[in-house]
Parts: sequence; C-alpha cells; structure tokens
Amino acid sequence: MKGLVFHGPGQSSWQEVPDPGVKDATDAIVRVEAVTICGTDLHILKGDVPEVRSGTVLGHEAVGEVVEVGSDVRTVRPGDRVLVSCITACGRCRFCREGAYGQCRGGGGWILGHLIDGTQAEYVRVPYADLSVHPLPSTLDAGDAVLLADIFPTSYEVGVVNGRVRPGDTVAIVGAGPIGLAAIATARLFSPERIVAVDLAPSRLEAAKGLGADAVADAREAPEQLVADLTDGLGADVVIEAVGVPESFELCTRMVRPGGHVANVGVHGKPATLHLEDLWIKNVTITTGLVDTHSTPTLLRMAAAGRLPTSSLVTHNFPLDDMEEAYDVFSHAADTGALKVVLGEPRRDVVAVPAA
Amino acid sequence: MKGLVFHGPGQSSWQEVPDPGVKDATDAIVRVEAVTICGTDLHILKGDVPEVRSGTVLGHEAVGEVVEVGSDVRTVRPGDRVLVSCITACGRCRFCREGAYGQCRGGGGWILGHLIDGTQAEYVRVPYADLSVHPLPSTLDAGDAVLLADIFPTSYEVGVVNGRVRPGDTVAIVGAGPIGLAAIATARLFSPERIVAVDLAPSRLEAAKGLGADAVADAREAPEQLVADLTDGLGADVVIEAVGVPESFELCTRMVRPGGHVANVGVHGKPATLHLEDLWIKNVTITTGLVDTHSTPTLLRMAAAGRLPTSSLVTHNFPLDDMEEAYDVFSHAADTGALKVVLGEPRRDVVAVPAA
Repeated sequence: MKGLVFHGPGQSSWQEVPDPGVKDATDAIVRVEAVTICGTDLHILKGDVPEVRSGTVLGHEAVGEVVEVGSDVRTVRPGDRVLVSCITACGRCRFCREGAYGQCRGGGGWILGHLIDGTQAEYVRVPYADLSVHPLPSTLDAGDAVLLADIFPTSYEVGVVNGRVRPGDTVAIVGAGPIGLAAIATARLFSPERIVAVDLAPSRLEAAKGLGADAVADAREAPEQLVADLTDGLGADVVIEAVGVPESFELCTRMVRPGGHVANVGVHGKPATLHLEDLWIKNVTITTGLVDTHSTPTLLRMAAAGRLPTSSLVTHNFPLDDMEEAYDVFSHAADTGALKVVLGEPRRDVVAVPAA
Repeated sequence: MKGLVFHGPGQSSWQEVPDPGVKDATDAIVRVEAVTICGTDLHILKGDVPEVRSGTVLGHEAVGEVVEVGSDVRTVRPGDRVLVSCITACGRCRFCREGAYGQCRGGGGWILGHLIDGTQAEYVRVPYADLSVHPLPSTLDAGDAVLLADIFPTSYEVGVVNGRVRPGDTVAIVGAGPIGLAAIATARLFSPERIVAVDLAPSRLEAAKGLGADAVADAREAPEQLVADLTDGLGADVVIEAVGVPESFELCTRMVRPGGHVANVGVHGKPATLHLEDLWIKNVTITTGLVDTHSTPTLLRMAAAGRLPTSSLVTHNFPLDDMEEAYDVFSHAADTGALKVVLGEPRRDVVAVPAA
C-alpha cells in the first residue's frame, strides 16, 4: 500500500510501505476512506516531537471501513464504517478507568502516527479497537466525520470543558485556526454572552465570524484592551489558547478576569513566562491537556444531527495519492487560506474561505 | 493608641497613632487582644507590595473585642469577641455573591494593613463588619483563633481545596513554613495516602513530621525523585506551592503527575518559567489565589472542637508592645526557628520547635 512516511525533520514522502496486518488480538485493520492533516503533523516534520522515529507513517485521524479484526475485538467487525480516534485506549489502566484515555498507561494514548504507524495511508492498524474506533452514524459524511477524530473533541474537551465555559460568559479564543474555530463552535453549545476571537490573519477572523464569534481582534492590536472594554475592565471569564507559542499563552493570562480560566489547547515547543507576581492574587485556573476523546460518541451524535459545523472548516479536498500536495497546501495556510484539508473520497459541499 | 507603622521599604516603627473611629455605618471598632505577623507583612517591608502607602498601620489578622459599631452593623455588638478576617467583604458585589470575597469589587478584599490601616495596633477599624468579623467560639483561645484570620483558611482554600486533595492521594507540599504546615494539617482532613513535605530547613521538616507529613525531603536533594519513587514514577496527585519563589513553583510542576493539580499559595514577586513544552500534554491544572475566607466559620468550629493543631504552629509569644522585637524574631526565622509569633495576651501552652 501507499503511506506518508516520516524520514526525519523536514523529510517525508508518499511511498510504498508494507500492508499492516493484525498483530494483537485486540487490533483492527481499517481501510482509510478519509484522512486529514493536523498541525501536530507539521510539528513532527519540524522535529518538535523527537520520539517519532524515522520510517513511521504519520497521521492520527481517519474514517474508514474495518477489513479485519483480531480474535478479541467485540464491538466492530469487517464491513463496519468507523471513525479512527486520535487516542487509542487500553480501557484497563488507572487512567482509562477514569476516562483519561489520553494518558493511557496500558500502551494506548496518542500512539498513531507518533509511536506506531498512523492513518495517512491506504490501511491502518488500530490497537485496542474496541475503545479506539467509533461506529459511524450512517448519515454522516466521511469528510465531515474525520474532523471528529481529533480537532472537535480536542477543542471541546481541552478548551471548552476544561475552561468551564458557562452561560453568560465572555470567552476569548486566541488563535482562529481549525482548533480555535472548533472551539468557537463548541463554546456556543454553552450559550456564552460573547465570544471574542483573536488571530493575525484577516481570513481566519472572517471564518471566526462565520462560525459565531461576536467580536474579532488582530493579535497585534492589544486585544486585551478590547476584552477589558467589553467586560467593565474585568477580563474574560474563559480564555482558550489555540496557537501554541509563548506569546499567545502570555496574552491569554493577561486577558483573563480574576477567578477566570485559561485553557491551553496549543501544542507548545518552548516554555512561556508565567507572571505569578500578577497572577498569584487573581484566583486564576490554568489547564493543559491532551484530548481524552471521552466526548467523541456525543459529538458523533451531534454531528449526525447537523449540530456541528464540521463542513465549514474544510477548505480543500484531495485524493489520497495527492498527500504531498495536501501537506504543501496545509503547511502554507497563510498563502493558501487552508483550514482543514481532507484526503480521500471526493466531497460534495466544499466551502472555500477567502485568503488574506 | 500604638500601632506598627510602615514608613516605606525597610522602615517601620511601633509608635503613637490616632485612635480609629467609626467612619462608615458598616464599620466596627475592635480592641486587639491577639495579633500575628504574616510573611506578606515582610513582603510589604521589602517593598514588594508597592500599593501600601507610607503611614499605613500593617497587619491583617487579629482577635479582639468589639468596642463600637456603626448604625448598619447587625451581627455583632460591643462586648462581642471576634476574629478579624484578613478579607473584608461588601457582600453585595458579583464576586461576594459567588463567595469569592477575596476578589470583592465593593471596596473589600484584602484591604487591612494594605490599603487601609490594619490590625497590628491596639485598635482597628473593620469595614463591612457583618461579613468581615466572625464571632469567636467561647472555648477558643485568642492565640489559637488568630491563626484562623489568614493562614488556616489560606492553606485550606487556596492549597487543599483548590488542589482538590482526595482520599488516597499523594500530596507534595513545597515549603514547610506556617502556610505549608497548615496545608499539611488541613490536607489530612481529606485522608490522602501520603503527604511529602519539602523544605530547606531541618527544623521545619521536623515540624512537618510532627503535623503528619509521612515523608520529608530536602529541597536541594531532588525531591521530585523521592515523589516519583513513591508513586511508581507518576508524580504527586496534588502539589501545593507554599514558598513564593520561581524555583519552588517550577519544582512543583516537575513533581505533579499527568492529570494532577498544582495549587499555588505562595506570594510571588517575580515571574516563573512554565514549561509548556512538557506540560501541554499532561492534563495539569494550575491554580492561584488569594483566600476568600468562605471556610472560616467551618474552621472556627473545627478549632473549637480541637480538630485543628493551631497551637503547634506558634513558637513565640510577645506582649503587644514588643512588636518590633517580634518582627525581628519572625523575619530571622532561619536563626530563631520561628513559625508563627503571636502578640497580645500571654499564652499557656507554647510549644517550641527546635531551631536548625
């Protein structure tokens, strides 16, 4: 089969690799119908995730059809269409028993396209299939559903739920890429008073408005002042960091009100400065997190019911064989206006977002 | 009357000042029976709290007798013995209505010995008396009760409750001064599996053992390794920062397990480095906070029932007129072995803790 193989920092290729087969009794083999590229994949290519070995097939998000299962798999069988979650879960360790699947100590967690071969291929082996794939509602398009493998549960659980968004809140979201946009969409489920989106790119701020942001601000133009003006000088109840650089995290800690929450979703490669000389007295809660995907079944039901704007985030579609071009388009988002790129079957309803 | 007056960084004196009188209808005037010195007072003297004006009487903790009340005060009357809380609360603003009295926007919060004259004097004016003093249980000694004006509710609310200590937890407490020791005592109320105390001073680690720490570690000898060894490599469920310097905060973030909590209690004057490149994936929750004192009525009942080891934290007693000597002893704790120093009436049961 073909797969996107990592060959060390800056190097990857769409090339022939061996077909995966069942290795453990809990494995499923899935034929990939739709797959997407994550910002984290770009981090890997930059060399920010050193534990990824050269020769690994990348990717941790897919929709596909089960073609083979090990003898211990009970909940899916060949022919089933499934979502392959970015998080694999043994279901038995201390963390899985608490629903903290992202921290699985039994050999799961984020392993696809990280510690083992991933989904950017024609087939993928998924360990612990019973807890790591989700049956796909029949009405859900593969290209929509694939956004529920990572970005929707990540934005929802790590941003909105960890940040404890509540009715009437002012929510500031720093970063209006796919993760920030999905945070806007899922924050709205809790009926905040207003959502303020912050980014550098006018095209992304336009997309933020389209998804329901009530106000937008250029990150270079003192967005903390806009938030202060909107909140009687107090600051936002919840601030969600969806970029992953020190400057944006530090901006978040300046925008939060006393007693408020900063939920970090961004993948960081460098430390940030935490201004405890200001924050010690402010009753601030800061959370970090890898997604657990405990919300994925719920989000799949909501998406099937048309309650999540998944399609709005997909700007580009490619056949699977155009993987290298898709990476090129996704990694030059400032020029291409790319939000999410989906590879696989052609889609019917692509919505283009204007570039800056 | 006499009071301890701040005269700018490094300068203070026990001197004659005007008697306070009722200025607002919600005020109470309290004759001070017992008062203590807080680490925060030392921060003020160092110049770390620039909003304190020269000429301010310091102190935010006291026990005493009400001698006069304004016309709107309903819950106490002259002759009542009361605890003067470090937090004053208007009771009407948005934050007070949520029990977040420390963030009061109606003119309260931490104001005593900060924005207005405080308790280190013969008399003190307490604004918003109905919500800012607490009737004293008759069986409670003034010298014990005064520890409930700040350090016990601070350690309990900002350390133990914010850190969400639960039965079976491993709790690490960095700093075994009065705040850290009160955190040990109040963490035990939730039946953790073990408490590990970290400090530089052998005398404080001895005091920590006396209050129920199961293990102690010298801060210079890789305490994170001890915690890792005790927890199968995972780290502590809850880590409480009770020092207030960047190094100790950063140590806390290295000692916490995936999914765990770091509760900052220390008063910080400088920023710390937050290693988001390690923490983004760990599902860590970091909290900061000024005490709200919502727990003070509960803690007073528990202290009256002998359920809090308040006496164990008091190493020195002085008459009120020896305020300057008391400051000297408290600020040289490494030499004097001082934990809390109490001024006012003589006490019966002082327990000395050996110096290093």
